[in-house]
Amino acid sequence: MKQIQVIGIGAGDPDQLTLQAVRAIGATDVFFLLDKGEDKAELVALREQMLAEHAHRPHRVVVARDPDRDRTAATPGYAPAVDDWRRRRADVFERLLIDELADGACGAFLVWGDPALYDSTLGTLEEVHARGTVDFDWTVVPGVSSVSSLTARHRTGLNQVGRPVQITTGRRLAEGGLPDGADDVVVMLDARRAFAPLAGQGLHIYWGAYLGTPDEILVSGLLDEPLAAHITRVREEARARKGWIMDTYLLRRPAARDDRS
Amino acid sequence: MKQIQVIGIGAGDPDQLTLQAVRAIGATDVFFLLDKGEDKAELVALREQMLAEHAHRPHRVVVARDPDRDRTAATPGYAPAVDDWRRRRADVFERLLIDELADGACGAFLVWGDPALYDSTLGTLEEVHARGTVDFDWTVVPGVSSVSSLTARHRTGLNQVGRPVQITTGRRLAEGGLPDGADDVVVMLDARRAFAPLAGQGLHIYWGAYLGTPDEILVSGLLDEPLAAHITRVREEARARKGWIMDTYLLRRPAARDDRS
Ligand SMILES: C[S@@+](CC[C@H](N)C(=O)[O-])C[C@H]1O[C@@H](n2cnc3c(N)ncnc32)[C@H](O)[C@@H]1O
Ligand SMILES: C[S@@+](CC[C@H](N)C(=O)[O-])C[C@H]1O[C@@H](n2cnc3c(N)ncnc32)[C@H](O)[C@@H]1O
Repeated sequence: MKQIQVIGIGAGDPDQLTLQAVRAIGATDVFFLLDKGEDKAELVALREQMLAEHAHRPHRVVVARDPDRDRTAATPGYAPAVDDWRRRRADVFERLLIDELADGACGAFLVWGDPALYDSTLGTLEEVHARGTVDFDWTVVPGVSSVSSLTARHRTGLNQVGRPVQITTGRRLAEGGLPDGADDVVVMLDARRAFAPLAGQGLHIYWGAYLGTPDEILVSGLLDEPLAAHITRVREEARARKGWIMDTYLLRRPAARDDRS
Repeated sequence: MKQIQVIGIGAGDPDQLTLQAVRAIGATDVFFLLDKGEDKAELVALREQMLAEHAHRPHRVVVARDPDRDRTAATPGYAPAVDDWRRRRADVFERLLIDELADGACGAFLVWGDPALYDSTLGTLEEVHARGTVDFDWTVVPGVSSVSSLTARHRTGLNQVGRPVQITTGRRLAEGGLPDGADDVVVMLDARRAFAPLAGQGLHIYWGAYLGTPDEILVSGLLDEPLAAHITRVREEARARKGWIMDTYLLRRPAARDDRS
């Protein structure tokens, strides 16, 4: 039997590692790193720093190519592309587990933030397990998500007293607008600045980029002009400077006082 | 100037402390513990264990009485009761900061899970700060929430690929039913088993009680009878045995494949 740990490593600050994650890293023989072929040297360096500090000797690091997801397909024809990508990703994982991990050894995937949030590692492992081609078991170490990072840095709650919060993607916000029935909405994976058309509706925005890293940027306030344009500008400048951006935001519609519970 | 740290301590497992939280605990002169007058000896013991292990010497622990919230008021008349409770809670915090923390000293509130999720510490500090009666600044250390704990133990994601997730309360689920537009719904603060009436609708439930503690219980499966009745029974037995319960669950409506993105 082979053992896999899926370890949430926090969303940018190496001190966001939990004691449980430190222990899990220390117990790992083989680290599997999936390389998306992108050029985020800082993020690679962050992982290397974590391994240098917490991995036990000897250990091995195996880097594999993460298959590209075809993001060009339009929404209706999207599912086959996603299925195909999932299958190819499962193929990569399967080969790693068969070829690179000895029986009785412990492998680990280091996952950004919390492994439960918009990450495909858990789904892929389940798919490989269902194939029955390699005998392994796996555990998950929860991590501090970029959502918790965002609210901590803005010193605000995720929800208003007794009220719901929704976590969604930029794509969905752009297509469907602000969801009904949630006064607080966290937006991730937003490549299209879906907040911009929502300016002037009395929403409050808490925006954060590169959270937990030395490049962290925070902006908050009433989502109106000029704030929406300001965030757009800050975002574009940062992206141009670094070559990539990673941002998240919380949109808050203040609840009517007499509806609060 | 007085300094306050609001420290997320994870949701039950002392190893869920982050390195940042360990450091923050080690830098604290005065810990403020709010006593709700309830009898959860294990939770008190867990905090004591954390302080014994990570607090620096010398430090002080100040226990204050957390004012009761009047939970008997019905929803419409609820807001005044909440406002009154907030004010009394801010009074308690204000006295702690004035009387128990010297200028230049560092105080801390240890908050269960992640401070952003259904916790009033941040709101109360903001209210005290707005009063302007005591000069202090504060920072927030994010933590692993019970939501991340739940999904890690069930080895499942919080959301389906590219889809939203809503986090809500048992009260709202009982009153409003399953929210539209979110296929994954996490329910917290549920004293009324709001999942029970949803049996037989094709939902999947991932339920967890006392997560991260030695008493942890996990149940998952299609939310149908007999599973709903089984969870109710397990829940009641555990509550009777321990005198209190702390549980959370994720309800999942499998997304139609061709609508997945
Ligand atoms: C593929 S998802 C992974 C989320 C991750 N599992 C977590 O728990 O944060 C990537 C998205 O997370 C958000 N994100 C992750 N890290 C971030 C950071 N340090 N600062 C801002 N946003 C971040 C961005 O919205 C980004 O598009
Ligand atoms: C007042 S809220 C605080 C939540 C906390 N800030 C967090 O991040 O988990 C308390 C609710 O959190 C959930 N909860 C907290 N700890 C839990 C645990 N160890 N196991 C199961 N549920 C838990 C329960 O739904 C409980 O009613």
